[in-house]
Amino acid sequence: MGGRDYDRRQFLAAGGGGLLLCTLGGQQIYSDREADVSALASDLEVPPKVAAAQRSGATPVSGESEAVLAAARADGSRREYWIKAEQVKWNALPRQRDGMTNKKVKTKGKFQAYAYRGYTQGFAQPIAKASIPGPVIEAYVGDTVVVNFRNETPGPVTIHPHGIQYSADMDGAYKGKFTEPGGFVQPGEEFQYTWEAVPGTEGTWLYHDHGPLDPVPLYKGLFGPMIVRPAGSTPPDKEFWCFFHSFQPVATGLDVPIECINGRSYAGNTPTFKSNVGDRVAFHVVALDDDFHTFHIHGHRWQDADGTIIDTKTVGPGDSFTAEFTENNPGRWFYHCHVFSHLHQGMNGWYLVE
Amino acid sequence: MGGRDYDRRQFLAAGGGGLLLCTLGGQQIYSDREADVSALASDLEVPPKVAAAQRSGATPVSGESEAVLAAARADGSRREYWIKAEQVKWNALPRQRDGMTNKKVKTKGKFQAYAYRGYTQGFAQPIAKASIPGPVIEAYVGDTVVVNFRNETPGPVTIHPHGIQYSADMDGAYKGKFTEPGGFVQPGEEFQYTWEAVPGTEGTWLYHDHGPLDPVPLYKGLFGPMIVRPAGSTPPDKEFWCFFHSFQPVATGLDVPIECINGRSYAGNTPTFKSNVGDRVAFHVVALDDDFHTFHIHGHRWQDADGTIIDTKTVGPGDSFTAEFTENNPGRWFYHCHVFSHLHQGMNGWYLVE
Amino acid sequence: MGGRDYDRRQFLAAGGGGLLLCTLGGQQIYSDREADVSALASDLEVPPKVAAAQRSGATPVSGESEAVLAAARADGSRREYWIKAEQVKWNALPRQRDGMTNKKVKTKGKFQAYAYRGYTQGFAQPIAKASIPGPVIEAYVGDTVVVNFRNETPGPVTIHPHGIQYSADMDGAYKGKFTEPGGFVQPGEEFQYTWEAVPGTEGTWLYHDHGPLDPVPLYKGLFGPMIVRPAGSTPPDKEFWCFFHSFQPVATGLDVPIECINGRSYAGNTPTFKSNVGDRVAFHVVALDDDFHTFHIHGHRWQDADGTIIDTKTVGPGDSFTAEFTENNPGRWFYHCHVFSHLHQGMNGWYLVE
Repeated sequence: MGGRDYDRRQFLAAGGGGLLLCTLGGQQIYSDREADVSALASDLEVPPKVAAAQRSGATPVSGESEAVLAAARADGSRREYWIKAEQVKWNALPRQRDGMTNKKVKTKGKFQAYAYRGYTQGFAQPIAKASIPGPVIEAYVGDTVVVNFRNETPGPVTIHPHGIQYSADMDGAYKGKFTEPGGFVQPGEEFQYTWEAVPGTEGTWLYHDHGPLDPVPLYKGLFGPMIVRPAGSTPPDKEFWCFFHSFQPVATGLDVPIECINGRSYAGNTPTFKSNVGDRVAFHVVALDDDFHTFHIHGHRWQDADGTIIDTKTVGPGDSFTAEFTENNPGRWFYHCHVFSHLHQGMNGWYLVE
Repeated sequence: MGGRDYDRRQFLAAGGGGLLLCTLGGQQIYSDREADVSALASDLEVPPKVAAAQRSGATPVSGESEAVLAAARADGSRREYWIKAEQVKWNALPRQRDGMTNKKVKTKGKFQAYAYRGYTQGFAQPIAKASIPGPVIEAYVGDTVVVNFRNETPGPVTIHPHGIQYSADMDGAYKGKFTEPGGFVQPGEEFQYTWEAVPGTEGTWLYHDHGPLDPVPLYKGLFGPMIVRPAGSTPPDKEFWCFFHSFQPVATGLDVPIECINGRSYAGNTPTFKSNVGDRVAFHVVALDDDFHTFHIHGHRWQDADGTIIDTKTVGPGDSFTAEFTENNPGRWFYHCHVFSHLHQGMNGWYLVE
Repeated sequence: MGGRDYDRRQFLAAGGGGLLLCTLGGQQIYSDREADVSALASDLEVPPKVAAAQRSGATPVSGESEAVLAAARADGSRREYWIKAEQVKWNALPRQRDGMTNKKVKTKGKFQAYAYRGYTQGFAQPIAKASIPGPVIEAYVGDTVVVNFRNETPGPVTIHPHGIQYSADMDGAYKGKFTEPGGFVQPGEEFQYTWEAVPGTEGTWLYHDHGPLDPVPLYKGLFGPMIVRPAGSTPPDKEFWCFFHSFQPVATGLDVPIECINGRSYAGNTPTFKSNVGDRVAFHVVALDDDFHTFHIHGHRWQDADGTIIDTKTVGPGDSFTAEFTENNPGRWFYHCHVFSHLHQGMNGWYLVE
């Protein structure tokens, strides 16, 4: 921010300020103007391997991955998920109040978002309301994770996982002419992803769209948490996921960006996390937009993996980490991004300890 | 910066570029226009617990904290500080020169700042001139830190500490309708903060305003250093605090932001640190504005907590760390932020070794 | 990005958005307008020690450094480099295609860059084509590195190393009136830098211009990789250097900034790294512009120095680190910056494993 030119008069004939995000189908996509996903989708060419898979009527799971999967089943367990990418009427500000200052917020927070949503076996029943971030994908080392994915958004989207092991056809990334079926799941289509929680994949991770319209669907909410735990380990008593991100006008059609934690903005809308003294508590923190953030929590601190004791940690786009401590401090606390403008535009929430 | 739209003509009817910092009293506060603290302060509602404490004439220290404090006194020592928040005529560029290029700097650096200032017991005498950052608050594990705080600025401000242990009524944070007296210290009023340097709070920390006008008073200079040392440890021979921050027009009323280390801009104005060969030297680095920074020092390197040897480290808003090494390299050196525009707009200083 | 003001109409009379980089010779240099290096250079005063050295016809190596060098030779080896800073016709987009989306890129990528280029002894023959980044400077602990540097660009430039040990006259930094000859190497002149790979300098480093026109020559490409290895160690089977940086209009005269890895933009132009299953692979990552980045690689992860397993790591200007792992995952993968706009404007590349 420091270097912005504030002597504006000398640039009277200038203007702008929108952030160029990407070029899709030859069209420049800016953060501050809504993108038309359906129009962009209609311009896309179907990559050759994707078209071939469709023509052959092949099952979406490749033979290579089936072999890996069979091996994995031999000495681990199989965790199967049914996840849809859906359109959802979202409200980032359901209370229209900022709990931090106890004031009404004038910003509008309603728009057509996208969300990953978990279903029971065979997509029979939704497990919960659509959420941003999506459902937690959880594994223990030795497990095979199978995600049956159905795309019900208007454009091709995918699931790209972080951290876990997977073969190249299972990475859910659009790769231009090299794209495989898992990297271009068209509206109404399904794909089965298979990933392996091999030793050395333990960690706090995330998953997100990485299809041909990326980053627009991501800005609309297509991301979620994933965790790989050591084999035989016991999860903490309380686990809280904090995704620091923003809904940009490119994704919302609204006038201003909305600074969010888990799809909501300002304390009282963002999650109010609760624990009790004595609990082993884990905050799983992920950043996922164009910005860097610092996770800070009041009245608490934790030992970082490098051994230092900290209460604030930098987290950049795609980064993820866990802050873990034993709760010993009752009261009403803030957790927030410590970047001044993020904090004060809604990237904060309550943490209540009894 | 990469994505900024440089084809300006197509946005002729557009404009702006100021960073929305926050909404205070229903008014949008931008980084590039001075905020009127007195006017903003007059619009604030006094939170219920703050009003009740005033009516009751209660001492500002809560019973809960007194109990903790009594326990702490039993096996530790009490370190008491008297600190005022004051208005101060500040000059970020007292020499109007950039020592790095040996050129005159045209930017004006004078404005009405706020600073924390240390006093002797009972606010009898100032210990030193008002400084940005404020006085060092120092403790050893086992100590109780008591800060007697008086607010002599025109708006309500507070002291919020990082790292150290404190009960929820002692965190100095404005929490809307849940605000306790320590989170809303009105002009002319006092509050006594009590914090505990319990085991597990060792570290390089900071303190800063977190009141209802945050981040404006922070941008005006209301922040300072705090350190909790292991019990019985010996401090390094030389300790240097480096706060990387900026004075934004919102706080200064000046035309341009000023990139600073410790409230000053450009080598020769920023601190010139001095040590001797053989000294154990510690640079305590803190970042505190809307930006991320990288601390770099010429001719030296240190072992990071993770074991790697580095000479540059990322530090985000609210982050803090210590770079420690044994001095072995005489000469005139730079320390600076390695972000190009920050470095070259004043975030640099001299380090002289004999 | 979050806080940018998107309600533009209210700032109709405003404008701008260019980033003020620095003030050179009293002239404000903006990122979005090309700087005239020759004109800027002609305004520079020659610092007194530089002028004195020229008048005396002294060899550019100081006595002090010669003594250190002699000591180093006694128990280590001398590694000597001949490196020129040259002007080079560069093309950041030689294929004019984005391999990630398989689309033509309209952005122009040709401009007059600067590059460090390695030569055989006595500058007899270029070792390779000029490259951005420059040639790898490599040492083992105990070595003395000697860089014979010749400046063939139109302005004074230097080589400033990170991480390695050097005396104050060898740091290649312009220091205003305190500048020594190595900090101001004029067009057509030479300087011999001597640096020591003493114990405690092991690491992944970089070198770059730090002369009186910094950061303009840096934005034009004057940077390169340096590595200090433990004595007697064996390098990994495959080593890949990834410099995340941008070519800004200030350096290129082009309309838009170009997001780059190693001087190129978009997969297919950026390096396509190749390895085989079983290889010990190291990605050496450096960031060097005004931005922060996150290095991410698909299908792989590594153990960070702090012991955590990660697949994404924040890297700020001047930061550098190594991600090392044993290759076990064949296929076509992306490595990229995970900042959305950087990724989608070209900061991505292919990694092919057989």
